[in-house]
Amino acid sequence: MTGEQYLLLPGPTPLPNRIIRAMGRPLINHRGPEFKEILQEVTAGVKEIYQTKHHVLIYPSSGTGGLEAAVVNFISPGDKVLAVSIGVFGDRFATIARNFGAQVEKIDFPWGEAADPEIIGERLKRDVNGEIKAVLITHNETSTCVFNDLKAIKEAAKDHPALFLVDAVSGLAAVDLRMDEWGIDVAVSGSQKAFMVPPGLSFLAFNDRAYAAYKRSKTPKFYWDIDLGLEYLEKGQNPVTPPISIYYGMQEALRMMKEEGLENILKRHKNYRDMVRKSIKAMGLKLLARDENASTAGTAVVAPEGIGANKIRQYMREKFNIVLAGGQQNLNDVIFRIGHLGYVRELDLLAVIAALEITLKELGFALNMGEGVKTAQEFILNNY
Amino acid sequence: MTGEQYLLLPGPTPLPNRIIRAMGRPLINHRGPEFKEILQEVTAGVKEIYQTKHHVLIYPSSGTGGLEAAVVNFISPGDKVLAVSIGVFGDRFATIARNFGAQVEKIDFPWGEAADPEIIGERLKRDVNGEIKAVLITHNETSTCVFNDLKAIKEAAKDHPALFLVDAVSGLAAVDLRMDEWGIDVAVSGSQKAFMVPPGLSFLAFNDRAYAAYKRSKTPKFYWDIDLGLEYLEKGQNPVTPPISIYYGMQEALRMMKEEGLENILKRHKNYRDMVRKSIKAMGLKLLARDENASTAGTAVVAPEGIGANKIRQYMREKFNIVLAGGQQNLNDVIFRIGHLGYVRELDLLAVIAALEITLKELGFALNMGEGVKTAQEFILNNY
Repeated sequence: MTGEQYLLLPGPTPLPNRIIRAMGRPLINHRGPEFKEILQEVTAGVKEIYQTKHHVLIYPSSGTGGLEAAVVNFISPGDKVLAVSIGVFGDRFATIARNFGAQVEKIDFPWGEAADPEIIGERLKRDVNGEIKAVLITHNETSTCVFNDLKAIKEAAKDHPALFLVDAVSGLAAVDLRMDEWGIDVAVSGSQKAFMVPPGLSFLAFNDRAYAAYKRSKTPKFYWDIDLGLEYLEKGQNPVTPPISIYYGMQEALRMMKEEGLENILKRHKNYRDMVRKSIKAMGLKLLARDENASTAGTAVVAPEGIGANKIRQYMREKFNIVLAGGQQNLNDVIFRIGHLGYVRELDLLAVIAALEITLKELGFALNMGEGVKTAQEFILNNY
Repeated sequence: MTGEQYLLLPGPTPLPNRIIRAMGRPLINHRGPEFKEILQEVTAGVKEIYQTKHHVLIYPSSGTGGLEAAVVNFISPGDKVLAVSIGVFGDRFATIARNFGAQVEKIDFPWGEAADPEIIGERLKRDVNGEIKAVLITHNETSTCVFNDLKAIKEAAKDHPALFLVDAVSGLAAVDLRMDEWGIDVAVSGSQKAFMVPPGLSFLAFNDRAYAAYKRSKTPKFYWDIDLGLEYLEKGQNPVTPPISIYYGMQEALRMMKEEGLENILKRHKNYRDMVRKSIKAMGLKLLARDENASTAGTAVVAPEGIGANKIRQYMREKFNIVLAGGQQNLNDVIFRIGHLGYVRELDLLAVIAALEITLKELGFALNMGEGVKTAQEFILNNY
């Protein structure tokens, strides 16, 4: 079919024209006054999205780089940490901590489910001597399209002194996250998710409790060292050469996000999710996540018996130029994921639902063509 | 004055229109077939520029990230390393190694001079037990605009088994570097220098001797881990989300570089240097570097007595919209640097020389207006 690709991944996401144009501006001196203003504007804007008054440092790296920054700055070799995993990215966070010498105790929940606040609360309650120095947890698990209820988990932790280190790479600005209000100590995100900007920047937000842990930390570091970052931020600079074009994109994105308002952005993502899930159910397909923990950043659909998820993805790609994500590791060929994160048009999602119906029909799945689309139409009618 | 800024830093550099347009393309799936092709093309192209048949891994990071990758992959805590420094970036490489637990012995040469191959050869000769595991050295020292003669240094090292780890961030494709021919084991570079692309990617080239050291290395790592990178490269992917837009830029840049040819690119940079240095001398100004070690990526000019370098830079910026780099640390206000790296037009350099003459006149320096420009004209007449 003709025309542009429909990119419906849980990141990278479609780019707004305003952002593409902003990124095309000529480069400037990253140690000069123009960049200083951009850095300050972007840092302040990202803080607002985190809902924090504390520190934010921006790194030239992918989101995983931000996770490594969280580990090397706030955890020391030998520290006991509780790593809560509900999927691939929870596992990755745990692996990074283990690679840097932390004693990692893992709590794994079945893929497709959220972490149970009670189980985490119980484990921390048993840690009467406060040996657990940090809890690592995913905000929104991209691999299963499930989010964790961080507020409830933090409440269940009561007054346990462990630092809460949150991987919010795919969740920030798509799923509610109130860093200061909920008492999150560290949260990591990146430019290529709800910020609608290409990959290339990660964001490390941390409070003063985390900073105190940094001062005690013995993990070797240079690139991720927060004192170096804070020292340069004071001068309106980065310690290293920043990806200036991606900063231009972030500046424009944060202006767009301010115009729309964070509450509206979160509401919009809820609508994406609800519309997609209702339509998928109307087709007679199964969803991986339960309603109460279903991510607003993407939806994981279980492929029908006998039709592999990858066959569906391939058909959608070749016939309709629609790119969906597959399942990772054990979920490979079991699920496919529809990303609805960042700059997504509702009618594009409707088109994807229509194409999915055609695809399923073509691949031999029994369904009443049009039921999914009608459900999406009704959702739009009632909610916009 | 009207019009676009003249950006004459030793990186970031001006962007060719072709690269800006390439970077504006819509994002794609970084785990899909289109990205695989781009990754393979860019990796192969970067290898050609390094003149190596060995490995190249590409990281989402600044050049400094690439230096950290070299340290954490190829050096172990306690390893004795010889860090040769001729300026800010030589110091930085040494600091990174020290932060990761290496026993760093530093050889410092005065800022503005190149490393003396004999002194390095002598030091390695005295290391009869082969305790020195690695030599860290800068290819082109951005802070002083001096390059090291790596070929002569490698020859002076004779058959000492130390790995040679080279910071070629600002030098690659501007100053000759023949990785395999000269026996360089590891070399780091980045997208924002002679590649004419915005910052955001670093390149780590390494040979099999370096890979053997990696296998023995005990430094903790995740983000920079080369086995992880090689495993994903095999699949045509990155372990983490790559800055797709910067890859588009690199793809286009490498095509442009292929059209021009590496030899012509190096010749062009030599011409920039020679034209700028002759003109500066004609104005009666002093140069920091001697002719034989003067970088082809940029020129450090010593400000005249009584007129600080920063005053000259400020005047050039405010009056002519020309951005030059200052001196770093001890050289602050002593030198200014004219970058001539990447996509620079000869006539822009001529215009900068003209503006510098006006600036110096205005700030009270006695000179024959026009001598510098005339020298540049004659250089162009004779060399183009």
